[in-house]
Amino acid sequence: MTSIRIAIIGAGMAGLKAASTLHKTGMNVTVFEKSRGLGGRLASRRTEFGHFNHGAQYVTARHPGFAAYIEQAKSFNAAQNWKPNLHHGQETSPQQLGNLALDHWYQGAPQMNKLIGPLVEPFEILKQHQITRIEQLDTRSFALHDDLDGKFGPFDGVIVTAPAPQTAQLLQPLSQRYDPIGDVVMAPCWAVMAAFETPLPTAFDAMLHPSPAISWAARSNPSDDLFHRRCPDPWVLHASPNWSRDHLEDDQERVIEKLLGALRDVSGVKLPDLHSVQAHRWRYARTETPLGSSHLNGMNGRVIAAGDWCLGARVEAAWRSGQSAAHAMIETLIG
Amino acid sequence: MTSIRIAIIGAGMAGLKAASTLHKTGMNVTVFEKSRGLGGRLASRRTEFGHFNHGAQYVTARHPGFAAYIEQAKSFNAAQNWKPNLHHGQETSPQQLGNLALDHWYQGAPQMNKLIGPLVEPFEILKQHQITRIEQLDTRSFALHDDLDGKFGPFDGVIVTAPAPQTAQLLQPLSQRYDPIGDVVMAPCWAVMAAFETPLPTAFDAMLHPSPAISWAARSNPSDDLFHRRCPDPWVLHASPNWSRDHLEDDQERVIEKLLGALRDVSGVKLPDLHSVQAHRWRYARTETPLGSSHLNGMNGRVIAAGDWCLGARVEAAWRSGQSAAHAMIETLIG
Repeated sequence: MTSIRIAIIGAGMAGLKAASTLHKTGMNVTVFEKSRGLGGRLASRRTEFGHFNHGAQYVTARHPGFAAYIEQAKSFNAAQNWKPNLHHGQETSPQQLGNLALDHWYQGAPQMNKLIGPLVEPFEILKQHQITRIEQLDTRSFALHDDLDGKFGPFDGVIVTAPAPQTAQLLQPLSQRYDPIGDVVMAPCWAVMAAFETPLPTAFDAMLHPSPAISWAARSNPSDDLFHRRCPDPWVLHASPNWSRDHLEDDQERVIEKLLGALRDVSGVKLPDLHSVQAHRWRYARTETPLGSSHLNGMNGRVIAAGDWCLGARVEAAWRSGQSAAHAMIETLIG
Repeated sequence: MTSIRIAIIGAGMAGLKAASTLHKTGMNVTVFEKSRGLGGRLASRRTEFGHFNHGAQYVTARHPGFAAYIEQAKSFNAAQNWKPNLHHGQETSPQQLGNLALDHWYQGAPQMNKLIGPLVEPFEILKQHQITRIEQLDTRSFALHDDLDGKFGPFDGVIVTAPAPQTAQLLQPLSQRYDPIGDVVMAPCWAVMAAFETPLPTAFDAMLHPSPAISWAARSNPSDDLFHRRCPDPWVLHASPNWSRDHLEDDQERVIEKLLGALRDVSGVKLPDLHSVQAHRWRYARTETPLGSSHLNGMNGRVIAAGDWCLGARVEAAWRSGQSAAHAMIETLIG
């Protein structure tokens, strides 16, 4: 229908939701993703024996639009309900418990990063392309530059869905309108993926705030039979924001040792032998102070910031922000 | 891109704005218009010697999106500024005067109904098709029936932009969600188009609330040279809402006589001889009590009501409502 050219930076939930919506309106969409995989923090790491979900642990669907998306994903076998036997740690506030009680939890199937499946349409996705600069060519078009001297474009519109600090770095040179992104706070998160040779002796599948160091510990539960056959008990630990900040530059080995020690203290038993263990540092994980609006636009509506950090620390916040950014771009470029 | 089929009822500003936006996203749009012309109350009547603008008299552009639309229309020579020498009658409130002072006024060029020009794209428009019933075929599709036993469809989505009472009649059989449309109040308006043989002896081009009977009187000002050559002084009178209600079922002749009498009393002079005169009754003209939201949807977001009466008695309210309805339909059908 049109020859409108759109660049989207980031192939997480927000970026792919925006890409999918704009692609379906006939726009020519290119997604730039700095890593090798899709999904952002909807992340799964493949190991010799299966997958760990080491990023987002579960998804809620309070908004009707996102609830419909989850239903669609379930019909594609890309999502499933998850009802862990949950232990609430002492630091859980009554409000958090109330929210938990109201929610259904979902995961991607067979692993978390499959949750974006329904959004992957035949638009172009350039992986391992890290965009470092957005160049304004004229009032209506933009070029993107990557870290390898590549230049892409021109584009009629750009949607940036990187974590807030990286989005701010890309957009603040263009206009003061993007200054509020600088007020967004995203906490880091150290994640440990531990595969125990024998089951961890606990009655729970998941623990919320079990200790000051650990904000979340759960059996990584991909519905992946191969995985379950080969490895009896895979766990993912997420360090708390404060602990992660205090140990941001620590070695992986030291992080693993300390967090497994904290898990041992919580469970009160000797941990089973490890089959394997690894750690991943999310530099920007949980949004602590969101932007407070579903997206932020500037450059006459042609360069739009989006991401979970616009509305809050939830996967559905990312989806809604991506949708909102896409609709704002439609308003700018179509009417 | 897609084979989404959309029906839009009404080819006024709201309906055509929605149609244009959805057409540009690749949807297959059909517009049903009960009259012979486009534009709804952006109306111009062709006479033997030119056009009268007997519906909306001028357009304001307070919203940035609509201001951009007016600029686009001006670049197509489909809109022009209008700065009449205005007389404020005694019934004008200070707030009305304040609003007037802030506004720029625009008209379609060369006549009012040309203002919709930028919205007319190559989608199908069926004129003289009065839709009398919307039939739900299943949860995802609908058929339209007209007053001549015609049946159209199936459609994946329907946007109804008729005046509120007619929209209510079409939608309320489908769902209680449309009940609030019944609270919208639109006043009737008798319009008189009088062409005087010689100029009306007044210093003003337009009079706001000159008398209890007349809410508006203005030189109809189409930039139509042919018209100006042949007819020295064309005026449009709009009767006030109360007067129009009291005389709703009167004969045209009686309405013309009374309103010209009121104009004579206001101007305090004998009116020039008439070259020609006619009247038009707008059964639903000015919105007195709007819906209060930009559109109203139901049937899982697939049947949406829109129109100036959603937001208020302004042409730009119609444009914004049409845009808002289109974006809601995009959210339902595209994501």
